Amino acid sequence: MSDKCVVLLSGGLDSATTLAMARRDGYDCYALTCLYGQRHCIETEAAKRVAKSLGVTDHRLFHLDLSTIGGSALTDPKMNVPKDRSDHAITSGIPVTYVPARNTLFLSLALAWAEVLGAFDIFIGVNSLDYSGYPDCRPEFIEAFTNMANLATAAGVQGKGKYAIRTPIIGLTKAQIIEQGRHLQVDFSLTHSCYDPDEQGRSCGHCDSCILRQRGFAEVGLVDPVAYQPL
Amino acid sequence: MSDKCVVLLSGGLDSATTLAMARRDGYDCYALTCLYGQRHCIETEAAKRVAKSLGVTDHRLFHLDLSTIGGSALTDPKMNVPKDRSDHAITSGIPVTYVPARNTLFLSLALAWAEVLGAFDIFIGVNSLDYSGYPDCRPEFIEAFTNMANLATAAGVQGKGKYAIRTPIIGLTKAQIIEQGRHLQVDFSLTHSCYDPDEQGRSCGHCDSCILRQRGFAEVGLVDPVAYQPL
Repeated sequence: MSDKCVVLLSGGLDSATTLAMARRDGYDCYALTCLYGQRHCIETEAAKRVAKSLGVTDHRLFHLDLSTIGGSALTDPKMNVPKDRSDHAITSGIPVTYVPARNTLFLSLALAWAEVLGAFDIFIGVNSLDYSGYPDCRPEFIEAFTNMANLATAAGVQGKGKYAIRTPIIGLTKAQIIEQGRHLQVDFSLTHSCYDPDEQGRSCGHCDSCILRQRGFAEVGLVDPVAYQPL
Repeated sequence: MSDKCVVLLSGGLDSATTLAMARRDGYDCYALTCLYGQRHCIETEAAKRVAKSLGVTDHRLFHLDLSTIGGSALTDPKMNVPKDRSDHAITSGIPVTYVPARNTLFLSLALAWAEVLGAFDIFIGVNSLDYSGYPDCRPEFIEAFTNMANLATAAGVQGKGKYAIRTPIIGLTKAQIIEQGRHLQVDFSLTHSCYDPDEQGRSCGHCDSCILRQRGFAEVGLVDPVAYQPL
C-alpha cells in the first residue's frame, strides 16, 4: 500500500507540478485547497480541474475567511494588486500580496488533515527563488514548521511517525518548474496563476504572478495555454 | 501608548482569566475567537460576553469549519464526547476531544492578525497540568511555535519586533486559575466550559471539561455560577 500524503493545491502551476511530483514518487495523494481571497470561484474551479486531471484519492476545499483579518492585497478588497504595465518588473521586497501567516495557516490545516488520515508527508509548492520576498517560502521557515508539527500533534508525540514537509520545487526557477511539469504531463491549460483575473477568469498579464509565469514559459520556449485579457 | 496584544478567547474560564491577566499587565487587548465545533452559538455568546465585560479594543470571530477535516469528538458529529457518570474520573492519555493541530491553527490565525495589527504578543490560555493529554498545550510546543512564527512573518523577518506567545496559566492548577480570575474580577458566570451543553446552554457536568471546572471550584471553596443540566 502506498504512503498517504496531503498536497496543498491552489490550482496554480507550482502546486500542480508539486502534486505531479508527489504522484511520481508513488504517494497516495489527498489534495487540500485553501480558499481565502477574492478569487474563490476561479481558484476553486482550477484546483478541481487539476486534482481531477492528475488523479487524487480525495480533494477537500477549505474556506478561510481571511478578510476578517485583512492586511493583504489578496484578502482586503480595499487594497489593489500591484501591476507594472511598463517594463514587466516584479515588485521588490515583501509585496502587498504577501498574506500574513498564509503558509503557516495552510500547512496547519494540512497537518490537521494529515493527522486524521494517518499521513506524515505534506507537500507544498513553495519556491524561494521567484518569491524571494515571501518569508514563508524559505527553507528555514519550512524547517521550523516541521519541528513544531512534530511537537504539536498526538501522532508526532506518540512516535507513530515523523511529519515531513516536502518542498520539491523550492529551489527551482519557474522555467525549471514548467519543464518538470511538462515532463510529468501536467496540463498547464487547467492551471490558474493570476492575482487579478477578470470575470471570465482571464489572466491580467501584469501582476507579479502573471509576469513570473510568462517569463517561465518564454524561457522554455513554450506558449502559455491560459487565456489573457486583451490589452 | 500601550503595546497591543492578541488574546485567543474561547469564552471558557481559562481564556477569560488569561485575558484579565493581559489587561492587568497593561496591554491593549484584541480578542480573537475561533469557532470550529458543534457549539458555535453558545461559545460565540460566551466569548462576546467575556470580551465585553473585560474590555477589549476589538473582538473578532473567526469561523473554521473543521468538520471538513474531522478527527475529533469536538468536530465530528458522529463521535461522542466521553463522559464518566460514575466516579468523575477524567479521560487518561490523549482524549477523543483532542482536535488535530487545533492550537497550531488558532495561534496561526492569531499570528496573522497580530502581524496586521503590529502586535507582537499573543496570549493563549493553554494549561499543561489539567490537559496533560494534549500535546499542543505543552511548553515545548509553544517554544517551537514561537520560533516558527519569527521565521514565517514579514514583521518577524524584518526585525520590526519579536513575536512572543504568552501562556500565563500554563503551569497553574484549575483552582489556581480560578483564584487568579477571582482576584482580577473575572465574572465566571459569563464563561462556558462544557463540551456538550444542552439547547439552553446548560453544562452537562460529566465531560472532562465540566469535571475539571467543578473540581477547581470545589478546591477553592466557591460555587460555580453557571447552570448545569438536572441529573
